[in-house]
Amino acid sequence: MTLYLNLATLLGQRIETGLYLPGQRLPSVRTLSLEHGVSLSTVQQAYRVLEDLGLAVPRPKSGYFVSPTRRQMLLPASSRPAQRPVEVCQWDQVLELMRTSSRPDTLQLGSGTPDIAAVTLKPLFSALNQISRRHDLAMLRYDNIQGLLELRQQVARLALDSGCRLLPEDIVITTGCHEALSAAVRALCKPGEIMAVESPGFHGIMQTLKGANVQAIEIPTDPVTGISLEALELALEQWPVRAILVTPSCNNPIGFTMPDERKQRLLRLAQRFDTPIIEDDIYGDLAYGYPRPSSIKSMDKEGRVLLCSSFSKTLAPGLRVGWIAPGRYLEQVLHMKYIGTGATATHTQMAVAEFIAKGFYQPHLRRVRGQYQRNRDRVIRWISQYFPEDTRVSQPQGGFMLWVELSESVDTLRLNRLLTESSIQIAVGSIFSAVGKYRNCLRINYACVESAAMEEAIRCIAQSLNSAQTVHNCHPTSQSSG
Amino acid sequence: MTLYLNLATLLGQRIETGLYLPGQRLPSVRTLSLEHGVSLSTVQQAYRVLEDLGLAVPRPKSGYFVSPTRRQMLLPASSRPAQRPVEVCQWDQVLELMRTSSRPDTLQLGSGTPDIAAVTLKPLFSALNQISRRHDLAMLRYDNIQGLLELRQQVARLALDSGCRLLPEDIVITTGCHEALSAAVRALCKPGEIMAVESPGFHGIMQTLKGANVQAIEIPTDPVTGISLEALELALEQWPVRAILVTPSCNNPIGFTMPDERKQRLLRLAQRFDTPIIEDDIYGDLAYGYPRPSSIKSMDKEGRVLLCSSFSKTLAPGLRVGWIAPGRYLEQVLHMKYIGTGATATHTQMAVAEFIAKGFYQPHLRRVRGQYQRNRDRVIRWISQYFPEDTRVSQPQGGFMLWVELSESVDTLRLNRLLTESSIQIAVGSIFSAVGKYRNCLRINYACVESAAMEEAIRCIAQSLNSAQTVHNCHPTSQSSG
Repeated sequence: MTLYLNLATLLGQRIETGLYLPGQRLPSVRTLSLEHGVSLSTVQQAYRVLEDLGLAVPRPKSGYFVSPTRRQMLLPASSRPAQRPVEVCQWDQVLELMRTSSRPDTLQLGSGTPDIAAVTLKPLFSALNQISRRHDLAMLRYDNIQGLLELRQQVARLALDSGCRLLPEDIVITTGCHEALSAAVRALCKPGEIMAVESPGFHGIMQTLKGANVQAIEIPTDPVTGISLEALELALEQWPVRAILVTPSCNNPIGFTMPDERKQRLLRLAQRFDTPIIEDDIYGDLAYGYPRPSSIKSMDKEGRVLLCSSFSKTLAPGLRVGWIAPGRYLEQVLHMKYIGTGATATHTQMAVAEFIAKGFYQPHLRRVRGQYQRNRDRVIRWISQYFPEDTRVSQPQGGFMLWVELSESVDTLRLNRLLTESSIQIAVGSIFSAVGKYRNCLRINYACVESAAMEEAIRCIAQSLNSAQTVHNCHPTSQSSG
Repeated sequence: MTLYLNLATLLGQRIETGLYLPGQRLPSVRTLSLEHGVSLSTVQQAYRVLEDLGLAVPRPKSGYFVSPTRRQMLLPASSRPAQRPVEVCQWDQVLELMRTSSRPDTLQLGSGTPDIAAVTLKPLFSALNQISRRHDLAMLRYDNIQGLLELRQQVARLALDSGCRLLPEDIVITTGCHEALSAAVRALCKPGEIMAVESPGFHGIMQTLKGANVQAIEIPTDPVTGISLEALELALEQWPVRAILVTPSCNNPIGFTMPDERKQRLLRLAQRFDTPIIEDDIYGDLAYGYPRPSSIKSMDKEGRVLLCSSFSKTLAPGLRVGWIAPGRYLEQVLHMKYIGTGATATHTQMAVAEFIAKGFYQPHLRRVRGQYQRNRDRVIRWISQYFPEDTRVSQPQGGFMLWVELSESVDTLRLNRLLTESSIQIAVGSIFSAVGKYRNCLRINYACVESAAMEEAIRCIAQSLNSAQTVHNCHPTSQSSG
């Protein structure tokens, strides 16, 4: 990351944490230049970024001030799903999302793709290239059922950042995090059994439960602290919950990171009820703050946690390289991987292992983390400009997904269909619930913000909101605010 | 394929079909040279291949004769599995096979890997190489949920060879045939339901049923004509069979190709009981005879057949590129693919599409088909030389797998453990049955026969047979001959 972007990120964090208050004067260009040992023009560039993000405003001859007019967006309300096991539905809408996600002429704000055009990914192409030029026959063979050893070694090394001490033999490489989650669910649950999930929660997880004929009990989540431990405890007391599935760090779709103390309490709860935890950590490496959030797995001494992740969000989803550290459930997970795909493609595993081993992973992460954080602020500013007063947005702590809660009368399914004409696609809120709640919510991908196009898209979505009102009262399936 | 190998294959087929009888004089070198318009030395090379295969013997000054002393190996007996639905077991043994399959120092006769060192595969490396050099961002994106359009177009074109008229939109690309079969099984069957399968049958299929909690009813098969239609009819009458899963062309592990007329009858049976058919055609393109066998799918006008295949056996398994044409079950299969892996790796799909589009697929097939057919004859000759009198072997019509039925007293599980010391691995027969039948059988991969090493391995297996006798009578789980 360049010096001025570094500085902009730092100042942005200070503004956000309230170290500099709205309207307050920011340090002078000269002061910052001396303090950080950078040139005056670097500081000026950093301030221009903050201006662009709507965090700072210049006043002639007085320097920069924290934006006083900055409208504080409200966070989404804590969710209130029904507290009983349900069958998952919504497959039609997920399929619609999948089908439109591959249209090349559409601005795909609903997809889960990171910035794959980042310049720091170039060595990945070189790695793929060199491996095929070596005519390495290993890339054509069936891979080891646990996955390529060299890659498992690198994954074990990276997992230390989240506090996990894993050995290569604790890890199973999978075809994306999708296969990791799917194998974990099927390894733990028989059809008809119950799994506790966050609500809202990733649609891939909801559909995995549907496919495995597992019932979901949706647990309320808070947009800052994550899954409600109180509601979870009640659910564990009341129902034979077979497993708990959470995305505790840089959650999808809400963006929270559970504080460590709450992760600890979640683990203790699981111990008390002797329940395994499936931990989806796919966005963990993309946390904006330092240090990277701990995984619940890092606190687990009993092999109770099945940690799932992948390189789909940090590098590129087309590689289909994910992994799972299934703890004491290793053999059951291997069985599910064997029957699901047999093995994972070898070539891309080799390339990812080489990319990490040669030291390209961390610089890439540093670059995209900064980019995503700045994009988040930019998009939130546009929403505060163009969307109605009562709009609520999440404040993601990592990743590149924004959750937007609209007036109860808005039907985002209808909105999405209206947007087709403008070649814009969003992820409708209802797919993030087992029973189609959150119809008045949507999720936006902000990984790649080409300013003009994205601002235009946000404006276009805002303009379509009026036409996307539900005709009848949709109380039972909408998210009530409060 | 070179001229002399072409000629050797032709003459070999004539000997095999009885056009030339044992002891009969074969056409002179000069005659063949004139007849086929090739040089005398080409004919001599062809005869040396037949000599090596044990099909022809030279007599000084008289030319070549059909081998008179050729011991006719008996075919395996028709199988006689129990005719009732059972739970699948044997996972431990499959896992053992998977784990030893990646040991680099072991001669892996138990694996399912084709000859990936074939010179005709070189353009595949070039394709992979060129795609990464183009820095094509498409390879990093989530693929279309149905798979890469360019590849589906090529698959549709190839499917014409088996008589199928498919459109690209009828096809779903999968992570290997494993995912195709797994998605098909889970799309059709709920837990506790019953599927009819061939016995013996591919262990991946058996384990897929286990993973989906589907019961198997094992149907007897004949080593020449395939699944017993009579037994299948009885099963359909007696049990609520939800689907039929067959590998009718170049079957794994037995190697038969069902005659077209029996394929037709199988389809009519499925129609009568309104049962879908999952057709595994993964080895179909590797049939030795011409024309390539028809698929049952090609006879199906109602979308009843789910045709599954991949490039794992024709090109290379490490690519993990398979496909399914699910007929009327398209949407259910898409759901199962979505929850299983989300998408298939894009890079390898692009490379396979390019390899086929540029015309490299058919020449590669021609080369390996000839090689596999010659290897089959070579390995059968060694077995007839070294194995006990009562050994029975299959006569595969395509692919590269040989099924060997030994005396009932032999336990191939024990044999396999004994062979570990000699760094040889076979596939034990018991994994090809839901309940561990066929303990006295084994499957050998003959894709790559480096003459000396392979003959030595066959001799080594033969020598270990005595020590691999069961102590007790294992009647209930062994395959009785008769």
